[in-house]
Amino acid sequence: VNLVTLTTDFGAADWFVGVMKGVILSVNPRATIVDITHDLPFGDVRAAAFAIACAYRFFPRDAVHVVVVDPGVGGDRKPIAVRTDDYWFVGPDNGVLSWAIARERIKAIYHLQNKRYFLREISSTFHGRDVFAPVAAHLSRGAQIRDLGRRLAEIVRLDWPEVVEEAPGRIRGEVVYLDRFGNAITNIPAQLLSRLNVRAAGIYARGKRLCPVAGCYSAVPAGRPVAVAGSHGCVEIAVNRGSAATRLHLSVGTRVTLREQAGRK
Amino acid sequence: VNLVTLTTDFGAADWFVGVMKGVILSVNPRATIVDITHDLPFGDVRAAAFAIACAYRFFPRDAVHVVVVDPGVGGDRKPIAVRTDDYWFVGPDNGVLSWAIARERIKAIYHLQNKRYFLREISSTFHGRDVFAPVAAHLSRGAQIRDLGRRLAEIVRLDWPEVVEEAPGRIRGEVVYLDRFGNAITNIPAQLLSRLNVRAAGIYARGKRLCPVAGCYSAVPAGRPVAVAGSHGCVEIAVNRGSAATRLHLSVGTRVTLREQAGRK
Amino acid sequence: VNLVTLTTDFGAADWFVGVMKGVILSVNPRATIVDITHDLPFGDVRAAAFAIACAYRFFPRDAVHVVVVDPGVGGDRKPIAVRTDDYWFVGPDNGVLSWAIARERIKAIYHLQNKRYFLREISSTFHGRDVFAPVAAHLSRGAQIRDLGRRLAEIVRLDWPEVVEEAPGRIRGEVVYLDRFGNAITNIPAQLLSRLNVRAAGIYARGKRLCPVAGCYSAVPAGRPVAVAGSHGCVEIAVNRGSAATRLHLSVGTRVTLREQAGRK
Repeated sequence: VNLVTLTTDFGAADWFVGVMKGVILSVNPRATIVDITHDLPFGDVRAAAFAIACAYRFFPRDAVHVVVVDPGVGGDRKPIAVRTDDYWFVGPDNGVLSWAIARERIKAIYHLQNKRYFLREISSTFHGRDVFAPVAAHLSRGAQIRDLGRRLAEIVRLDWPEVVEEAPGRIRGEVVYLDRFGNAITNIPAQLLSRLNVRAAGIYARGKRLCPVAGCYSAVPAGRPVAVAGSHGCVEIAVNRGSAATRLHLSVGTRVTLREQAGRK
Repeated sequence: VNLVTLTTDFGAADWFVGVMKGVILSVNPRATIVDITHDLPFGDVRAAAFAIACAYRFFPRDAVHVVVVDPGVGGDRKPIAVRTDDYWFVGPDNGVLSWAIARERIKAIYHLQNKRYFLREISSTFHGRDVFAPVAAHLSRGAQIRDLGRRLAEIVRLDWPEVVEEAPGRIRGEVVYLDRFGNAITNIPAQLLSRLNVRAAGIYARGKRLCPVAGCYSAVPAGRPVAVAGSHGCVEIAVNRGSAATRLHLSVGTRVTLREQAGRK
Repeated sequence: VNLVTLTTDFGAADWFVGVMKGVILSVNPRATIVDITHDLPFGDVRAAAFAIACAYRFFPRDAVHVVVVDPGVGGDRKPIAVRTDDYWFVGPDNGVLSWAIARERIKAIYHLQNKRYFLREISSTFHGRDVFAPVAAHLSRGAQIRDLGRRLAEIVRLDWPEVVEEAPGRIRGEVVYLDRFGNAITNIPAQLLSRLNVRAAGIYARGKRLCPVAGCYSAVPAGRPVAVAGSHGCVEIAVNRGSAATRLHLSVGTRVTLREQAGRK
């Protein structure tokens, strides 16, 4: 399908991402390359795993998703490629691919070992350029995954924090991602909201009610907090035209509870 | 023409822009997508309106310009598409398109209502992905605007601050945009400079002379302020190799006067 | 080859880069455009020269590399295009192209003077849009360099700080670039490491030993400094999962010495 996406923590300040694209276009001049993001927090494997899990399925079938948040580069974590029913995933086997792949049916996992698919010289510090970019480019133009290396049985998986039903109508979860708007994305599935009495429901943290649940940000006045069904399928805590992270002191890991009914703690 | 441009306040830190591109390429695999900017100040409809007004005409005819600075997402502002003689514009009807369109001849305005051109599931928080991206992709591959919804007579228009000729040779305007270099772009048309005695002319603010007018930044020594005919067609106040915004305490809305002749206040 | 790369200090906040792409696609609708970086320090010609020197050779043959860090825009520095055996380079003749070109064989240098290859109106502040983008687009679709203007004999060259062998096994160099991770890239060629007794070798600055030399970042514990052969072919001083620039107080110009053997100063 000639489509490669890139998700990294390389930032935009240097030439690292540009060079990956040069390598991809050298292997597959017909490739279309889409940046998902390059500004993930440095070395934050969980943020990267969440970002690609939210993004991958909006791309055409057979897209090659490259994810390089790789603090162990040059060490002994394996470079891998994964084929699922609909997509390719390429990156280090440090869990960064695992939340996206958890939603897909895996067809094959390969340890990237065949140097014919790498750049001729391989640095110890930039496998994004030397290993992952050329492998992705070869896959995007039809290379066979079985030629890339040795088959593996499993990938490293990050644990996903599951929500806990503390009582009927009380779901305890946590913040899993802060976006650039300061919206706090939780692990609470948004579809739970459709089963709730939304008018009475609210989000609680540290024993206090943070906000009501509503249909969209602008259901509350500017500057006021609200929880909505986020675009990623999770409950999201926001401040209309403001930052929930700042205003409500939320960070990744903060425990929050969705309660169907207002009431005592 | 298969060309779609994107102008948003979504930032580069998350997957939002990448996902819009995935949606566009899913509808039109031949689309070329160009980022105009994604780092507009959060929710700043006027900055977005100015950016696209400066940029749109440098693209090939029939390009589809998508502008999503949309603090009212999920509320009752209308999603619209506009056809002018030369371009398509897609975005929320909150004024963000109005300064670009003011320079074009409008052929049709449509309220986007036909869900066949949207993603199947529509969130209340991310119409960039669910509505604007797929509509733009359909337009870029030849969809008819009349199929998208209901025709409208007008769009919401932001007021543009017009300059005032206080006296012959004295034009009062204001700063309308600060760029990343700290250049202060004013609403004073640059062509006025060609009618002036530039040698004597200067820019004044708060009763004081800020700087002379010259042909280019480097007409003054490094660190010194100067007003030039900006690349956007407006008079621009700059500091050679520095920031006029910081050095001269200029911000959006600061009143400035172009005077043809040095003289008393 | 229809491939154009862009390296600038224009930032991502405004429409400047987007507009350059619009101009390129207006001239050559089949162009593929790759951003190398747009976040170089404002006006920093040496950082730009280093970035493109690290990046250019990872692109397919005949790519057109446009570099616009141009504090003298509108002044008397010349706009130029350079043909080497394998690539095109386009930018201001202020040295920004010189470190990349130093590694190539020059076939022709031209002063860009033929306005038929520029935009119709040329501003004094944005030659990236008005001169360099359209010239690059024309070159990418096969324009002859001899039609662009007048042939030049030489380009402006930035001096490159050469390393000094103070004594056998003691190489003195300096930091030439800080990347976004805080890695300090030096001018010491990485291939020197292969000749050293790496186990005993170390990097020294201000009379003190900063770190050992190793094969990859993760050869030392998280938070500890290490020097490695960087992906750009230079010795790089890093902190595993941290910032060497911050931790070791390194900046561009800081003198550092590679010593083969531990020992007295």
